[in-house]
Amino acid sequence: MPEQDTKKTISFSRQVPEGDGRERDVCLNCGFVNYENPKIVVGSVAFWGDRILMCRRAIDPRRGHWTLPAGYLELQETPEAGAVREAQEEAGARIEIDALLAIYTIPRISQVQLIYRAHLGDDRIAPGPESLEVGLFTFDRIPWDDLAFPSARWALHHFAQSRALHGFPPFTNPPGETGNLEVGGL
Amino acid sequence: MPEQDTKKTISFSRQVPEGDGRERDVCLNCGFVNYENPKIVVGSVAFWGDRILMCRRAIDPRRGHWTLPAGYLELQETPEAGAVREAQEEAGARIEIDALLAIYTIPRISQVQLIYRAHLGDDRIAPGPESLEVGLFTFDRIPWDDLAFPSARWALHHFAQSRALHGFPPFTNPPGETGNLEVGGL
Repeated sequence: MPEQDTKKTISFSRQVPEGDGRERDVCLNCGFVNYENPKIVVGSVAFWGDRILMCRRAIDPRRGHWTLPAGYLELQETPEAGAVREAQEEAGARIEIDALLAIYTIPRISQVQLIYRAHLGDDRIAPGPESLEVGLFTFDRIPWDDLAFPSARWALHHFAQSRALHGFPPFTNPPGETGNLEVGGL
Repeated sequence: MPEQDTKKTISFSRQVPEGDGRERDVCLNCGFVNYENPKIVVGSVAFWGDRILMCRRAIDPRRGHWTLPAGYLELQETPEAGAVREAQEEAGARIEIDALLAIYTIPRISQVQLIYRAHLGDDRIAPGPESLEVGLFTFDRIPWDDLAFPSARWALHHFAQSRALHGFPPFTNPPGETGNLEVGGL
């Protein structure tokens, strides 16, 4: 393909489009409005017996810290399919979705997280390119002092609270918590 | 501000970024990856006694048809706040969120819809710029033959099923339904 076919030139200006109430990037050539909106993160608390699947991050932010398999939902993907894909990509795991465990909002970074409760089909796991290592932890052996994000801690505790529940409303952010990383710990 | 300060020139190429598995728009100048991901629609089934708030659309798609107050979640906004804002903007309504009624996925257009059950603080409503008219309908008087979207129909039926429920898991797409508009009706 000739190089010019793979390039496009766009000139944007910050404007409030007609009928809108907020500034957006508007193309000065064609009027296209580049709406930016929050992104959806999908993930899971996946268990095998009394152990929970976790991944140690190989990428920033929070490289080297532990979290749940989770990532951005892709175009044309259902949230459930996205959570299954992330567990496969990050931990080589085959999971089956059981319930929507939680919906968390991290307004500062405009993320909405849909975290599912899931069970592992077997205990064969292996780190994918974005994980340094993966592990199955009983609740008291979770690396609590080395978690990557507040929402991972929330989800683990909400999972524990949900163990006896069927047909429950999804948990949300703990009262007053925004999901921001705090200096001095989570 | 001089005009050149409000313009930027970007040249994108479709590439698979390192460590990624999908083609993205990558800036040929700086390597910026323009990830495109599904968008979140937030809305509500808001009731006043035995009547439900609906809006007749003043904009495409489906101008002239009836739907629930709903729209795109904005940056730095929680889903609950977005649903409250949309009811205000589209119907001049003051609502209080009661529960997460449903999560629907429309994969074709990469939308995840978070629909809340809410009650109106009073029955003063008025069409906003995106509504031709607004109304409060008992269930049997809903303009069923003139609904804008399949997901509005789903939400109304799920709302009816939820009336006696407290602390329930959110409903999801009816089995086999994708949310696509079908020729010949919803």
